[in-house]
Amino acid sequence: MCPSAPGRPLDDACRRAVVLAVRPVVDGGRYPIKRALGDRLIVEADIVGDGHDLLRAVAIDRAPGTAAWRETELVAAGNDVWHATIDLPALGHHIYGVVAWVDSFATWRRGLEKKLAAGVDVSVELLEGALLVEAARAHADDPILAHAVTALRGGADRHARLAMATSEELLVAMRRAAPRANADRSPDQSVLVERRLATFSAWYEMFPRSTTSDGSHGSLRDAEARLEYVADLGFDIVYLPPIHPIGTAFRKGPDNSPTAGPDDPGSPWAIGGPEGGHTAIHPQLGTLADFDRFVTTAKARGIEVALDIAFQASPDHPWVKEHPAWFKARPDGTIQYAENPPKKYQDVYPFDFESADWRALWAALRDVFVFWCKHGVRVFRVDNPHTKPIRFWEWCLAEVRALYPDTVFLAEAFTRPKLMYALAKVGFSQGYTYFTWRTSKHDLEAYATEVCTSNVAEYFRPSFWPTTPDIFPEHLVHGGRSAFVQRVVLAATLGASYGIYGPAYELCEAVPRRDAEELARNEKYQIRTWDLDREGSLRHLLARLNRIRHAHPALQDNRSLQFHQTDSELVMCYSKREEDDTILVVVNLDPHHVHRAWIDLDLTALGLAPDEQFQVHDLLGDARYNWRGSRNFVEIDPDSAPAHVFEIRRFARSENQFEYYL
Amino acid sequence: MCPSAPGRPLDDACRRAVVLAVRPVVDGGRYPIKRALGDRLIVEADIVGDGHDLLRAVAIDRAPGTAAWRETELVAAGNDVWHATIDLPALGHHIYGVVAWVDSFATWRRGLEKKLAAGVDVSVELLEGALLVEAARAHADDPILAHAVTALRGGADRHARLAMATSEELLVAMRRAAPRANADRSPDQSVLVERRLATFSAWYEMFPRSTTSDGSHGSLRDAEARLEYVADLGFDIVYLPPIHPIGTAFRKGPDNSPTAGPDDPGSPWAIGGPEGGHTAIHPQLGTLADFDRFVTTAKARGIEVALDIAFQASPDHPWVKEHPAWFKARPDGTIQYAENPPKKYQDVYPFDFESADWRALWAALRDVFVFWCKHGVRVFRVDNPHTKPIRFWEWCLAEVRALYPDTVFLAEAFTRPKLMYALAKVGFSQGYTYFTWRTSKHDLEAYATEVCTSNVAEYFRPSFWPTTPDIFPEHLVHGGRSAFVQRVVLAATLGASYGIYGPAYELCEAVPRRDAEELARNEKYQIRTWDLDREGSLRHLLARLNRIRHAHPALQDNRSLQFHQTDSELVMCYSKREEDDTILVVVNLDPHHVHRAWIDLDLTALGLAPDEQFQVHDLLGDARYNWRGSRNFVEIDPDSAPAHVFEIRRFARSENQFEYYL
Repeated sequence: MCPSAPGRPLDDACRRAVVLAVRPVVDGGRYPIKRALGDRLIVEADIVGDGHDLLRAVAIDRAPGTAAWRETELVAAGNDVWHATIDLPALGHHIYGVVAWVDSFATWRRGLEKKLAAGVDVSVELLEGALLVEAARAHADDPILAHAVTALRGGADRHARLAMATSEELLVAMRRAAPRANADRSPDQSVLVERRLATFSAWYEMFPRSTTSDGSHGSLRDAEARLEYVADLGFDIVYLPPIHPIGTAFRKGPDNSPTAGPDDPGSPWAIGGPEGGHTAIHPQLGTLADFDRFVTTAKARGIEVALDIAFQASPDHPWVKEHPAWFKARPDGTIQYAENPPKKYQDVYPFDFESADWRALWAALRDVFVFWCKHGVRVFRVDNPHTKPIRFWEWCLAEVRALYPDTVFLAEAFTRPKLMYALAKVGFSQGYTYFTWRTSKHDLEAYATEVCTSNVAEYFRPSFWPTTPDIFPEHLVHGGRSAFVQRVVLAATLGASYGIYGPAYELCEAVPRRDAEELARNEKYQIRTWDLDREGSLRHLLARLNRIRHAHPALQDNRSLQFHQTDSELVMCYSKREEDDTILVVVNLDPHHVHRAWIDLDLTALGLAPDEQFQVHDLLGDARYNWRGSRNFVEIDPDSAPAHVFEIRRFARSENQFEYYL
Repeated sequence: MCPSAPGRPLDDACRRAVVLAVRPVVDGGRYPIKRALGDRLIVEADIVGDGHDLLRAVAIDRAPGTAAWRETELVAAGNDVWHATIDLPALGHHIYGVVAWVDSFATWRRGLEKKLAAGVDVSVELLEGALLVEAARAHADDPILAHAVTALRGGADRHARLAMATSEELLVAMRRAAPRANADRSPDQSVLVERRLATFSAWYEMFPRSTTSDGSHGSLRDAEARLEYVADLGFDIVYLPPIHPIGTAFRKGPDNSPTAGPDDPGSPWAIGGPEGGHTAIHPQLGTLADFDRFVTTAKARGIEVALDIAFQASPDHPWVKEHPAWFKARPDGTIQYAENPPKKYQDVYPFDFESADWRALWAALRDVFVFWCKHGVRVFRVDNPHTKPIRFWEWCLAEVRALYPDTVFLAEAFTRPKLMYALAKVGFSQGYTYFTWRTSKHDLEAYATEVCTSNVAEYFRPSFWPTTPDIFPEHLVHGGRSAFVQRVVLAATLGASYGIYGPAYELCEAVPRRDAEELARNEKYQIRTWDLDREGSLRHLLARLNRIRHAHPALQDNRSLQFHQTDSELVMCYSKREEDDTILVVVNLDPHHVHRAWIDLDLTALGLAPDEQFQVHDLLGDARYNWRGSRNFVEIDPDSAPAHVFEIRRFARSENQFEYYL
């Protein structure tokens, strides 16, 4: 019931400060905001009190697993807005809030000083001050306070009394000791602190069975050999589609044909066979020991392994027999398969999250994550989370994080925006986005602004993917290599997190299926061999791009993203900035033609003075240009380089010449 | 603790729908939104569910003092936003929220229809439907359900089974009866419903002691004789400054001079003398019986009486002796008077809201409101509420409303914006505003937009006053009659609530004090006589303005306020609209010169088609113009009429001619 509804009893003391709104906040505090380890959180609040008395306020926070509250003084920034910056030293849920109260001593001291300035007699005021100090002594055995009481009561001459009353020493002692009479405290808020990788990450998706050069079924050993290549490309995460036994019932053939031949390997997402389910390894990929080795080798190369968690079962999954209650039985005794009438997906049984045995099912699913965490995995790409209850994820991800707080979850939820955001609110670290289909300057700017810099960014972290095995968008079919370069530069610089589906992407594979927005000869259903040395590969560009991302803090967060106007609908310009590091990206959105444009830079966003001269250094192509002020010219030829990733370097004015800040 | 923090037990069932955000909302639900009796509240929520199952949702609400929840179906409006409109039939706090769940039957029926359309066998589906209907029968003894179970199970031929399965009758019965398995419910929200007068009101402030024509001390009987005049002017509320006994200790003389002569009447805000305090009547004004008569006569003329509640005491107030604990005693035994060092206000003792006896004090202050409510007063203008604890007001106003839910409170808080808004959040119906000092087009537009149409309007209701006894702003000193007309038209049409301090205002009294932003010979400290028939009086304009406000629903609410561009910084144009009623106001902000401007109307906001012809009829001056489309010309001479208040009349296209809609 609302506290101002009638009949609220007069049960609390007269609190005179009121904390009105603590920010940032998601859905009025129902869900946590998110930050990464090492981030500093700016806590802001509106705080008002009646009259003109001085207020004091602190941010209070409590790290996960600790009982003690830490305090940080809030500072008034004008218009009754107060703020403090707190660091976030541990993974997990930090709780924070704001406490405010009337600072009687500071108010008294201000009044005293005004009266002294006006030459008014202050003897009664000094006695009032003594009462305030006396009250504080009950809370702190500080000799300064005892001394002050004596002095203020007349145990010193006028000069000494006034010196004591207005001393910094007493003010500090009283700040420490004075009781916080009738303080107001905001409701607790929560911030989920995750690893830096949850914010800043480059993903490389690859099918481990497509890692041989002779067309045979690749193993985890073969995939392990591919890790050097992935490391050279500079990716942070290697993400494997499901590695579990694949069912044979209703197995799909090439390009999703309804019947499979005897040698067709099936879709890795049809999980489960006689060899096991979500915690087993597909025999042709190898053993758990091979997997452990794969993880170890990846780590040695600075790469994390991400697994694909797809909560569905092939009809051959052991749980179908062991736990029939976890599937939906139909009145005719059959098990409900996935369908989108009239389409049938008989190779896939969904779990029945509303089953009578749902508690056991939910626990078993959680334990799938826990199993792989025990094998060194801390990054999961979750398949279609939007077709499982949101409430399940809220519980499950919290359970996994309670054991392994360094776990990162990417939601593969290509669905309606509010549902994508709901999954982020309940705990997914990152989410796939509509970037894959956004191509016009207007659409890219509007979408990136929404997910990178609006309040959405408090809980949703976009991961930008130019393609996936499920999505090969139209603009790449005929855009040629330039389009591939353009899209991956956009992905890697608009978003602090991005990913590619390789090696198809860096090899600019562009033959589409006729009947679906996918590549032909889709790896989901068949083994492919890839010539990594194919001419035109983007491997060197990607390596450079990932190096730039690691070298430049500006590209490691999204909140500073700022678009700059250009006079061409096909030339897009934006910047990111982190303290002294400023990156300016200019992209030609047309893969076929040269475009020229005047750019109108927002110099404030770039930290540049009006009419200041500066150098832009293209970190991709190495060209350097000296620019001045806000209006500057670009010409971009997509054949040579569809995009510039400029570092902005200011000049240092020395006595007789300009020099670069280096 | 945040619900998604780790360790949240798996204690609830598998809720699949999630209600994400119910709107409108103030500070995440901490404070109620506000509406007036007769308003319809549009409840909006984001609701998502996993997968593609159909959802159903209802708004639930509970009128004050009732235990039963009412339900209103929510409708999906796209992008997972749902809304419903509910009426608010009673004064007080209505509680509302949203409940959402998966509609299994509707989902089943949609699947069945798809399969039927695709010619798929549906015999198992029909049995599944029978199970759903069977489950619903446990909740409702509806013969349709019993009949349907039999039919769906095969007790009818195929045609009859399908007819039953897809019948509207069964759908309706199932909507009524089907269990709401695992519904999600939002936190309760609150809306404070007040009288229409809280939203729409015209206030007339007058000093009852200044109602004689011979300079003698006026009485409530004299003031009563003035009510006919106020009624002719069309005001809804007559507001009297404090009517209580005035202290003699440290009484102020004319224009706030520190010493009063023997005949100086003193300031009505120095409340309390030997004759009584906040519940007594100043002897020269008359008796409680005279006051009751005043209230009765006002009511008979359609006017409500507003009293000024100023919670402070003169040193002669009976409470100073009866309840010394309610004042702040200083160490020298004196009582703390009001001060703003080095200024001293020795004629006023503030109450000590933090007194050891604060409960008794708070109750006594509440009882002041209750006392006057018992004498028929339901409107209070509260003096300086921002110098009393916000928490006190939250409690006190709720207490008064619990007894007299039709009470309206106006906060006289000329202070910082967030403090003004905090007072509105805790229960003040209306608040004074910065309108008094906003004069440029930009400032007026920005401020009116903030208080009339932003989220602030959910809880703060502005009352626009051109002047008060405390404030006579610079622009009226030399602006002449035109400035008085311009400011009152702005006040009465920008805001659904406004007020004037009369008769000084309608008589265009404009002689300022030299040393303060007030009128000279301020009525606060001396008795004035006013010649109501003085030439140039605005009485007829005010009467017309108030009649227009009552005749036009568009002017009775603020949320539709829309500004229209003009090409002059001195010509301001805005509209308000309520269904078919549209008012367009054009004001010349310069009281001295004729200005001409092209207006660029936002036709959508006006409900007009592009290039449509329409008539604008000046309800003040009676002139009519035929306009077409968005660009139209105005020329405004401040000497004849500084403002137009246009009613917009659309033409009805008849067969051979245009006619007006009348």
